[in-house]
Amino acid sequence: MSDNRTAALKFAQDNQARFLDELKEFIAIPSISADPTHKPQIQAAAEWVAAKLTALGAANVAVMPTGGHPVVYGELMAAGPGAPTIAVYGHYDVQPPDPLDLWETGPFEATQRGDNLYGRGASDMKGQIMASLNAIEAVLKHGGLSVNIKFLIEGEEEEGSPNLAPFIEKHKDLLACDFALNPDSGMLAPDLPTISYSLRGLAYFEIRMSGPAQDLHSGQYGGVVRNPANELARLIGGMHDASGRITLPGFYDKVRELEADERKELARLPMNEAFYLDQTGAPVLTGGEQGFTPVERAGGRPTLDVNGIVSGFIGEGQKTVLPAKAMAKISMRLVPDQDPEEVHGQLIQYMQENADPGVTWEVVFMSKAVASMAARDSDGVQAVSQAMESVWGTRPVYMRVGGTIPVVGDMQQILGADSVLVGFGLPDDNLHSPNEKLHLPTWQRGIDTLIHFFFNLEQ
Amino acid sequence: MSDNRTAALKFAQDNQARFLDELKEFIAIPSISADPTHKPQIQAAAEWVAAKLTALGAANVAVMPTGGHPVVYGELMAAGPGAPTIAVYGHYDVQPPDPLDLWETGPFEATQRGDNLYGRGASDMKGQIMASLNAIEAVLKHGGLSVNIKFLIEGEEEEGSPNLAPFIEKHKDLLACDFALNPDSGMLAPDLPTISYSLRGLAYFEIRMSGPAQDLHSGQYGGVVRNPANELARLIGGMHDASGRITLPGFYDKVRELEADERKELARLPMNEAFYLDQTGAPVLTGGEQGFTPVERAGGRPTLDVNGIVSGFIGEGQKTVLPAKAMAKISMRLVPDQDPEEVHGQLIQYMQENADPGVTWEVVFMSKAVASMAARDSDGVQAVSQAMESVWGTRPVYMRVGGTIPVVGDMQQILGADSVLVGFGLPDDNLHSPNEKLHLPTWQRGIDTLIHFFFNLEQ
Repeated sequence: MSDNRTAALKFAQDNQARFLDELKEFIAIPSISADPTHKPQIQAAAEWVAAKLTALGAANVAVMPTGGHPVVYGELMAAGPGAPTIAVYGHYDVQPPDPLDLWETGPFEATQRGDNLYGRGASDMKGQIMASLNAIEAVLKHGGLSVNIKFLIEGEEEEGSPNLAPFIEKHKDLLACDFALNPDSGMLAPDLPTISYSLRGLAYFEIRMSGPAQDLHSGQYGGVVRNPANELARLIGGMHDASGRITLPGFYDKVRELEADERKELARLPMNEAFYLDQTGAPVLTGGEQGFTPVERAGGRPTLDVNGIVSGFIGEGQKTVLPAKAMAKISMRLVPDQDPEEVHGQLIQYMQENADPGVTWEVVFMSKAVASMAARDSDGVQAVSQAMESVWGTRPVYMRVGGTIPVVGDMQQILGADSVLVGFGLPDDNLHSPNEKLHLPTWQRGIDTLIHFFFNLEQ
Repeated sequence: MSDNRTAALKFAQDNQARFLDELKEFIAIPSISADPTHKPQIQAAAEWVAAKLTALGAANVAVMPTGGHPVVYGELMAAGPGAPTIAVYGHYDVQPPDPLDLWETGPFEATQRGDNLYGRGASDMKGQIMASLNAIEAVLKHGGLSVNIKFLIEGEEEEGSPNLAPFIEKHKDLLACDFALNPDSGMLAPDLPTISYSLRGLAYFEIRMSGPAQDLHSGQYGGVVRNPANELARLIGGMHDASGRITLPGFYDKVRELEADERKELARLPMNEAFYLDQTGAPVLTGGEQGFTPVERAGGRPTLDVNGIVSGFIGEGQKTVLPAKAMAKISMRLVPDQDPEEVHGQLIQYMQENADPGVTWEVVFMSKAVASMAARDSDGVQAVSQAMESVWGTRPVYMRVGGTIPVVGDMQQILGADSVLVGFGLPDDNLHSPNEKLHLPTWQRGIDTLIHFFFNLEQ
């Protein structure tokens, strides 16, 4: 191990108490993005982060306006134009702390009990931001960075980052980078370092169907006119075949198939049938396509789910109504290289080809996010992987995340930058719930991991 | 024409003004069954009817208690045990008059404007009850009845007659009769005397489906567990085949097919495709089974309609939830000789054979009513038919009603008595709406028709 690396790790060790104090100070700012009355606190958190970046020696530090809460930008470009540039992503906003009475100690008075630090944002993701800044501080003090860094710390992630894509688009040149480090992911267990290299995308639709001009009496008109609730059900039913495959025309044309070695990696994840049965309480795991394991179906295959459906009379008792309208919210989780716009076209084609002429319908495209994937053999992923192995003594697991983080797809689409998703939160951190906590030994290993990561990039 | 018949018709003519005054008096009692504060008025209406029966000379007149509002009973048995006994059905309760401000004159101040008498219950069905009593009075005064009559005038029809079947069951011997005259139906047009000889039955269910133990994140678990909203939609979709036939096992086994001459009669009804398109506002009439006309499908064939469905997130916007539960209200309109209990078994069998093991489900049997049919060549139907032809100079149309009147099925099941459904209301009478009215010339023809009817039964 290089002297610098050893010294940087020691620096982190020696500064544990200060790092923890700074994290507590950050948690104390109630930067609740969803609450309009907390706008001053959001601003305060952004300025606090900006001050930290300045203290690190970052240049061009700015609290930059967006259509909503500001983005904090700053850069460390000393490695020079020949060196790679990494965007370090984070979000300084947090979830609301309600219900307050379930917290054992105040959500904004970070409190250590045993190995854990309790407080809103401790794990999601003020702790992760600080781990990144602490690691960079240690590296800067002991040999300096071999890469350039651009910080992009937003304030609306807990609201779905509604203003981030336009911001990235607008500041495309400023934010240009080779890849991104996104520590907003987590680990599957304290002894299981985890790299998330792929996220699913999303295409979310509302299908609005009309039959008769008004609700009808099912006795007078049942059997005469097509019932839009029956018809919508029939159409939804037909969107999967008996093997669980989605029947929209061309839906699988661009699906990137799971590679053999990828399936082998995914099989290492501690997420077998028993795990999913326990997590979901489902009687058996019969969602998705035949021929794939649950973990493959969850992360590596596209889906089509009804998120909501409503028609007619849904109160207590009975009403013999033949409803005039029916509505369903339907979303598809997409995998590389599916295009949400193309999926939109496929859904419309399916409806055109299959809907009965006794109904009219409209497909509203509510939102979209592209799937993303970082090459597992890329420099960034390999640098993280080796760093984790150095700290934990075990090769990390590679995970495909079934959910969607819009910023990852946006950075891939707008900046051409893959994201390496890491993070040192744990499944029992109570994210978005009372008594959110951060497991401090894992967090400290996380700082060490990021120190190794930056040194590994030198190679 | 017999002297008695001619004299009875003249009596009705001469007493028009008094008949109308009595009807106005009846309408003035706001016997709103749905409104608990109107219990005294319900009682008053029952007693008013009982007094009228007594005045007619009926014996054993009684305001009889039920689990809800009372039934008025009375009998005219002078024809003797050798003569047939007819039950005359009616309901003295009315719909609430709201919204009050849309009435041109007070709902309980019956007001004549032109040919119409306006007031709540004028057509539905105080006018029809009075037409029956007026006709019977005229016949009694001129030759007497050749049949026995039992009056069964209930007070909960507008609430779905919840206590009537147990009442009929309890008083089965008292109510024993050969057939029933039910003037709670209507005519399709002022020049189109109408006999409704069949009603559809009903079997109403709620299907409650569960998948995972709680709502899940569709990113984390989509493709792993079966989505109960997708599954319920698929199962509903499979309940019809491509030709519109219902696929529940054995569903058509007991369906009484439409006879050739019946189809010919139904084709006389002024309810062609254009009529149904106009009434429903549907783009085309693609409900029900192929191979039948709309009017046949509406009255003579069974149906399966979703009356309500709900699952997941149905508010504005989007939520990527994989719902834990889904519910649908599904009802079948039944034709003779389908048995609602058997249909219940068929639905359960369908679910058992088709539901995915990834969901659990429950079928709740909400309510049932058997279909009913009076033989078109029966004495009762023929007596009405000839009476109508005498008054209008045209053969009546024979109609199968798609809706369900529980009392008709109950009387058929419990008493073994078919019902002849007549009535002299018109489609534009604003039943259940503001400005309900009765077309007086049609009403007077109705009284004449019923006079003929009772004389025809002598033959």
